[in-house]
Amino acid sequence: MAIVVFGTVALDTVKTPFGERQDVLGGSGTYASYSAGFFTEVGLVGIVGDDFSEEHLKMLRQRHVDTTGVEVAPGKTFRWKGLYEYDMNEAKTIETQLNTLDKYMPKIPDTYRDYEYILLANNDPDMQVHALEQMHQPRLVICDTMNLWIDIKKSELKRLLGMVDVIILNDGEARQYTGQPSLVKAASMISAEGPKSVIIKKGEHGALLYSDGRFFAVPGFPLEEIHDPTGAGDTFAGGFVGYLAKNGRLTQETLRRAVVYGSVMASFNVEKFSLERLITLTEADIKNRYDDFVRLTHFELPQP
Amino acid sequence: MAIVVFGTVALDTVKTPFGERQDVLGGSGTYASYSAGFFTEVGLVGIVGDDFSEEHLKMLRQRHVDTTGVEVAPGKTFRWKGLYEYDMNEAKTIETQLNTLDKYMPKIPDTYRDYEYILLANNDPDMQVHALEQMHQPRLVICDTMNLWIDIKKSELKRLLGMVDVIILNDGEARQYTGQPSLVKAASMISAEGPKSVIIKKGEHGALLYSDGRFFAVPGFPLEEIHDPTGAGDTFAGGFVGYLAKNGRLTQETLRRAVVYGSVMASFNVEKFSLERLITLTEADIKNRYDDFVRLTHFELPQP
Repeated sequence: MAIVVFGTVALDTVKTPFGERQDVLGGSGTYASYSAGFFTEVGLVGIVGDDFSEEHLKMLRQRHVDTTGVEVAPGKTFRWKGLYEYDMNEAKTIETQLNTLDKYMPKIPDTYRDYEYILLANNDPDMQVHALEQMHQPRLVICDTMNLWIDIKKSELKRLLGMVDVIILNDGEARQYTGQPSLVKAASMISAEGPKSVIIKKGEHGALLYSDGRFFAVPGFPLEEIHDPTGAGDTFAGGFVGYLAKNGRLTQETLRRAVVYGSVMASFNVEKFSLERLITLTEADIKNRYDDFVRLTHFELPQP
Repeated sequence: MAIVVFGTVALDTVKTPFGERQDVLGGSGTYASYSAGFFTEVGLVGIVGDDFSEEHLKMLRQRHVDTTGVEVAPGKTFRWKGLYEYDMNEAKTIETQLNTLDKYMPKIPDTYRDYEYILLANNDPDMQVHALEQMHQPRLVICDTMNLWIDIKKSELKRLLGMVDVIILNDGEARQYTGQPSLVKAASMISAEGPKSVIIKKGEHGALLYSDGRFFAVPGFPLEEIHDPTGAGDTFAGGFVGYLAKNGRLTQETLRRAVVYGSVMASFNVEKFSLERLITLTEADIKNRYDDFVRLTHFELPQP
């Protein structure tokens, strides 16, 4: 089954202890849709400027991402400039240029409106609601967010939470949104506002799924080096929804597997800058790393 | 099979956001031996002053801990005073009074010297080596350490590493000892200095086992509240060695299960101050939380 991904399409300038890149392909919608494209058909919705390279759109289409919903507007593409220091769990934003993203209101192409899965990747919650309201009858609605929206649009985010089935956010954001240091309490407080499932990402420490009153925890994949964490959360979200849409069932078991697939995709993404690693990724790589996650986490029941 | 635990026996004064306690039972040897005592017979080695309550020793003996090796010397018991703030992963030491621990050299009772398992709980590495050298032919030697010894006795610690099978340390200490931010690289560097297995504790984020070139990761148990993290690492070490000694086999599978048992014991210990939670703990509690860890971490292979 196909997925709508609504999110940003950006040109990023990123510096990490391992190097830097200027004006490379980025954005929550880009990472999420490209990642989901490994699992099923995706329709991307977003906006770029007339400076955006057709090559980037072509690359997305080669990964099963329909770009009909990507509007090309006069002006410049949204730009983000960020820095990671020793603690690769946290980006420092140096500069954000909204450009064509400013005052943009998403338009979901008619051909996408019957899709059963929609991922509202990180973006202004007003835009996320506007995108969602154009869908006919989605079976599963997932949203991501970030600290900025908790700071400046908390009531709009709260409204969105009442409309989604799954929310994905990081540990700092879960604590910030609820004012609750305990992630266990924070997860159940967030779930009480709407989402049946809450996924709390913990960067290199893995992720926590809260669903039906039960927790599932997956550790971060032990990597020798993390070159660029940009887009890790979006890639996680794309793998998560991609697996669910491909599988078609929504059970505790498929949600858990989807969290592992999200972790698999994110673990590849951070190995190189921008989408460099995802572009060379194969289905065999994904299968092998899923197996690696099984080996990483498996332990036996004790003998009776 | 029985275990020797060598470590400190202390009176702790601890303050956390959930309360405070004065001169309560603590020390690496106390936590570790009490925890291991849920699995098998333990012989504790350490020193206390003549201010130390016989009640504490009696309580240890009731948990299968032989206290023959606990020397009672004239003077005061070792005291530690610490504070935890919002970040419960890190203790701030307010005061340390060595008292009778100063210039102490451990003496392993003759009755313990043939035991096959020895846990050198956190202590001065010179004392740890001195204790180990009195053992006849231990089958498994495990040591714990802390940042203080990396700061002031790194070469002594390095010597100890050449003599042990398993080292347990936390993520900050692994990075500090090796100067390597990547835990994957740090684990293999530490293993190259002697220990076949390296366990890296990550506080609320769980633990990582590196053994035979393979990683095993277990997440932290999602707890609503952590009241006092004091002794969590020692309790982990006690559960780890306790399970191994009870089981008798040393395979990748038993090491993994032992890491889970360590995590189970530590997850109980932090629920209350001092040994308050361990004292009321039952074997059924341990079994149930092990099962909880299975449920927390289990995911299926995807359908083919």
